[in-house]
Amino acid sequence: MRQLENLALFTDLYELTMAASYFDHKMFEPASFSLFVRNYPPFRSYFVCAGLDDVLHYLEDLKFSSEDLDFLKETGLFKQDFLSFLMRFRFTGDVLAIPEGRLFFLNEPIIEVTAPLIEAQIIETFLINAVNLQVMIATKASRCVHAAGRRKLVDFSLRRTQGIDAGMKVARASYIGGFIGTSNVLAGKVYGLPIFGTMAHSFVTSFESEIDAFRAFARSFPENVVLLVDTYDTLKGAEKAVEVGGELALYGKKLSGVRLDSGDMALLSKEVRKILRKGRLEKTMIFASGAFDEFKIQKVLNEGGDIDSFGVGTKMGVSADAPYLDMAYKLVKYAGHPVLKLSPGKQTLASDKQIFRFTTPQGKLQKDVIALRDERLEGGEPLLKRVMVKGKRIKRSSSLNHIQRTFLDEFSRLDDRFKSIERRRFEYPVILSPKLKTLQSQIIRKSRQKELGES
Amino acid sequence: MRQLENLALFTDLYELTMAASYFDHKMFEPASFSLFVRNYPPFRSYFVCAGLDDVLHYLEDLKFSSEDLDFLKETGLFKQDFLSFLMRFRFTGDVLAIPEGRLFFLNEPIIEVTAPLIEAQIIETFLINAVNLQVMIATKASRCVHAAGRRKLVDFSLRRTQGIDAGMKVARASYIGGFIGTSNVLAGKVYGLPIFGTMAHSFVTSFESEIDAFRAFARSFPENVVLLVDTYDTLKGAEKAVEVGGELALYGKKLSGVRLDSGDMALLSKEVRKILRKGRLEKTMIFASGAFDEFKIQKVLNEGGDIDSFGVGTKMGVSADAPYLDMAYKLVKYAGHPVLKLSPGKQTLASDKQIFRFTTPQGKLQKDVIALRDERLEGGEPLLKRVMVKGKRIKRSSSLNHIQRTFLDEFSRLDDRFKSIERRRFEYPVILSPKLKTLQSQIIRKSRQKELGES
Repeated sequence: MRQLENLALFTDLYELTMAASYFDHKMFEPASFSLFVRNYPPFRSYFVCAGLDDVLHYLEDLKFSSEDLDFLKETGLFKQDFLSFLMRFRFTGDVLAIPEGRLFFLNEPIIEVTAPLIEAQIIETFLINAVNLQVMIATKASRCVHAAGRRKLVDFSLRRTQGIDAGMKVARASYIGGFIGTSNVLAGKVYGLPIFGTMAHSFVTSFESEIDAFRAFARSFPENVVLLVDTYDTLKGAEKAVEVGGELALYGKKLSGVRLDSGDMALLSKEVRKILRKGRLEKTMIFASGAFDEFKIQKVLNEGGDIDSFGVGTKMGVSADAPYLDMAYKLVKYAGHPVLKLSPGKQTLASDKQIFRFTTPQGKLQKDVIALRDERLEGGEPLLKRVMVKGKRIKRSSSLNHIQRTFLDEFSRLDDRFKSIERRRFEYPVILSPKLKTLQSQIIRKSRQKELGES
Repeated sequence: MRQLENLALFTDLYELTMAASYFDHKMFEPASFSLFVRNYPPFRSYFVCAGLDDVLHYLEDLKFSSEDLDFLKETGLFKQDFLSFLMRFRFTGDVLAIPEGRLFFLNEPIIEVTAPLIEAQIIETFLINAVNLQVMIATKASRCVHAAGRRKLVDFSLRRTQGIDAGMKVARASYIGGFIGTSNVLAGKVYGLPIFGTMAHSFVTSFESEIDAFRAFARSFPENVVLLVDTYDTLKGAEKAVEVGGELALYGKKLSGVRLDSGDMALLSKEVRKILRKGRLEKTMIFASGAFDEFKIQKVLNEGGDIDSFGVGTKMGVSADAPYLDMAYKLVKYAGHPVLKLSPGKQTLASDKQIFRFTTPQGKLQKDVIALRDERLEGGEPLLKRVMVKGKRIKRSSSLNHIQRTFLDEFSRLDDRFKSIERRRFEYPVILSPKLKTLQSQIIRKSRQKELGES
């Protein structure tokens, strides 16, 4: 993908200054880093994995161009021997990851990287940037899907996603989270997603009258006539749509749908349904858009809103109630020694790890155990899969349809009490294996003794 | 810029279906669209203009590749004559805009586009996407700058911006809003911004002990030694930093700064200052990072925090308390006729317009008047400047330093009561000219008569 070219400098400066210092001190031993989320945002009790594919592309392509190196030289911060090292730099490490579409929970490493220290460090900024956004959006989308029940959702967020790359990643991640497609044409081309869309208010206002606009659109797209009816007044608009529906019937065509985009959606959708039924348009779909998210979907449906599909825009596309995750990428092992940081509220789990997921005989998710990498916990499914060895992917990307099915299947096996939209009463059980717990206390004790002079 | 290549399909599908229908009905007359913000997000009373440069690049480069057209053909939605039209498509319109760095207010058109209807319509998605993000971030950054007073701010948000493009645009827009630079190395290269950064916790934990890490960094970057002191305990860390400061002094070097990244910042900064003073490091800077935004900056400073500079990250980089603007791009004139939509809460101002800004003799901002394009209001400065004619820019981009100075100058002339961080008690006066008001009522009356059967 275009956005993934030449991103070596898409990094915080400190990744490069640290690397230069590691280089000076010949610190080339292998290091392991964990990528994980430290806190649940409000109302969340799970996360949906997404973004791994971009990470693996980035790692395979990562190199510094001569232009990049010229720029770094001009900063005056770096010595020539380090710049020469960067010229030859490639990522040669191993990556374990939870596959896209799987659920995960607090403190669970979703990606663990093992590589020579500089390689494992320098990729931090991109990894968090790519995965934070896509996990956040796939999770937000899944909440909308849960709220909507059997109704279909389409991503309408493109105009207010935070930039171009977000527009693409939101289309992809919302599909993983169960949306049926997007308004984003480029995402249709790049990811093969189904694309949706009909008309805006400007279409209606650029004609002499609303019904002229409806007729013109019906002539241009007789197979897919969805009419936006709220430009002047939703109910009057719906009546005009019924009129056009009658005209279409004369040619053996039908009115596919009407779209409501403002006002009291529960009330209006019920009134519009009556108008459609009166016009014998029983199969015409009611499509609603305008500031929808999981909260508004739930509210409108609770109020009896009679809506078949929702266009879900801005609030999903920026995850408006939780526009970032507390995601971190932390050193957990260096040169064979497990390490951690003790900063208040930001402690890490030391060493490279594996996660084991336990399910009931019926397949319901029961609990996860975070263990040391080389542990084997009987009856638990290891979630972290080896996806890259020595800088090369060891299997092809899964299709988005496969990833979506993976998500929908596992989500159906997660108990509803973890899916509440408006409160988080239950925390999914994630426990540490006895071995990891013991190691953790040992290292904390050792660090405190060494750094804080505690005994 | 890389992200701006081949973005013709970066659009909502409805832009293309509408265009196809306009094409069918030979609707090629000139149309005018206004880009504006419909509501203030919480606590905001002004906006900072940003994003225009990307818009003009996009408009100059816009074309459909043969690959794009192949994809559109495959969708089965479009007829060949329309696809042939798209093959020749270029933007040939005129653009008026408020220059980047200027302040603007509710309902004021920041960009007005006049072009053949299809051209003016098809660019909607990109325009909103580019300008919404950058205005939102420049405005958020300006709030942080206001809260910080004389202290310096650096953009530290890259890892949690919403994607790659956002990472770039946030660096640029926060600089416009008064930040002194960014951690984003690529933004340093692409935009020429000052870049900042030193070390992460992983640097500290990859050494045998914290002081080893400090010494190693000081050897690698003796001119720029900023030490992160909170990995184990901030005060113990500061004492070790003082020790390294003493060692640096032996070589005629100095400790540039210490960075605090967790804990009670007001308290810790005061204690760290004492430790630095005791170690005779009067000039060593205290740099603070960790969940800062305008609210936390204000709070920590109110509590007497003794901090010289802030790294401002995620919450600024996603505008966490207001992660989108209610920005819209609406048809205001077609084929010589002013138009508007009546949808509840979403009425537009008809016709192409000009904004006049009035200031006091001392230069303080007093009020803005939105008028018809051809009005001339004596004593008011017209804010919308002609920036593109027939698809070509008529002057070069301003430098970011120039744009930042433009912002800082005008911001200093905006009364403090519009800059409150935590409440919005005063709304900056924006009024409609009598001519615009009259036109507006006429069209509303006419639309109601025609579409709603009102008399």
